[in-house]
Amino acid sequence: MEPILEELTEAESLRLIEQAEIGRIGFSGRYGPVVLPVNYKIVDGAVVFRTAVGSPLGEDLRTGIADAEYKVAFEIDEIDSASRTGWSVMIQGAAHHVDDEQEQAALRVVGIEPWAGGEREHFVRIKPTVVSGRRIRRG
Amino acid sequence: MEPILEELTEAESLRLIEQAEIGRIGFSGRYGPVVLPVNYKIVDGAVVFRTAVGSPLGEDLRTGIADAEYKVAFEIDEIDSASRTGWSVMIQGAAHHVDDEQEQAALRVVGIEPWAGGEREHFVRIKPTVVSGRRIRRG
Repeated sequence: MEPILEELTEAESLRLIEQAEIGRIGFSGRYGPVVLPVNYKIVDGAVVFRTAVGSPLGEDLRTGIADAEYKVAFEIDEIDSASRTGWSVMIQGAAHHVDDEQEQAALRVVGIEPWAGGEREHFVRIKPTVVSGRRIRRG
Repeated sequence: MEPILEELTEAESLRLIEQAEIGRIGFSGRYGPVVLPVNYKIVDGAVVFRTAVGSPLGEDLRTGIADAEYKVAFEIDEIDSASRTGWSVMIQGAAHHVDDEQEQAALRVVGIEPWAGGEREHFVRIKPTVVSGRRIRRG
């Protein structure tokens, strides 16, 4: 069967990523582009995740985010190798620290547990400015 | 059980990505960082994939690659949500077009079929300069 590539609407894209758990953050690091997986949640329409203070991801992002307009990409997908079908969504937007302690406490309640454990007290929020998605199915 | 985060050696990382099929390319596009999934093969120690001439990925990458030192990141992972274990590998290096027709023919034989179909005649090769990997397991 022929593959059919179709664009997803923003609403479909947001619905799909609300149900997923792992995404990949992409940003410009000190030595060029960086892409790393993190577990995340969608909170009030924004992507939120935690990284360790002192980790390479944390340090590089921290340096970048010091610029309030620091742009990042966040990609989520679900792809089935056997059937070669699946979907992917990319969010582009500015990344910010969550500095407010009350807000951090609220996010902890949501349960953004970093799977890798350790002291991961650095919350990052990505407010989407562009949401794009695509799906490959078999026609 | 406590999560244990460990670094992978370059040899372990390369062995893992030889057996996977889908990776995410990250690069600086016209409007900021971009992360998109592609199916790939490892050929002579380099990541090789195809994109469509005329696609957004193709166009943005083409513009960037015009600079011979255009750096990209390529991330591959295998993560099990239920057990919260898995591994990820990131390759950083320069991306190049494969322009030579003989080389393109050789790559077609390797079977780098773009799952999304269509006219995808733009071969891209990433020669790793940095390979880093990590694994989360339960101790």
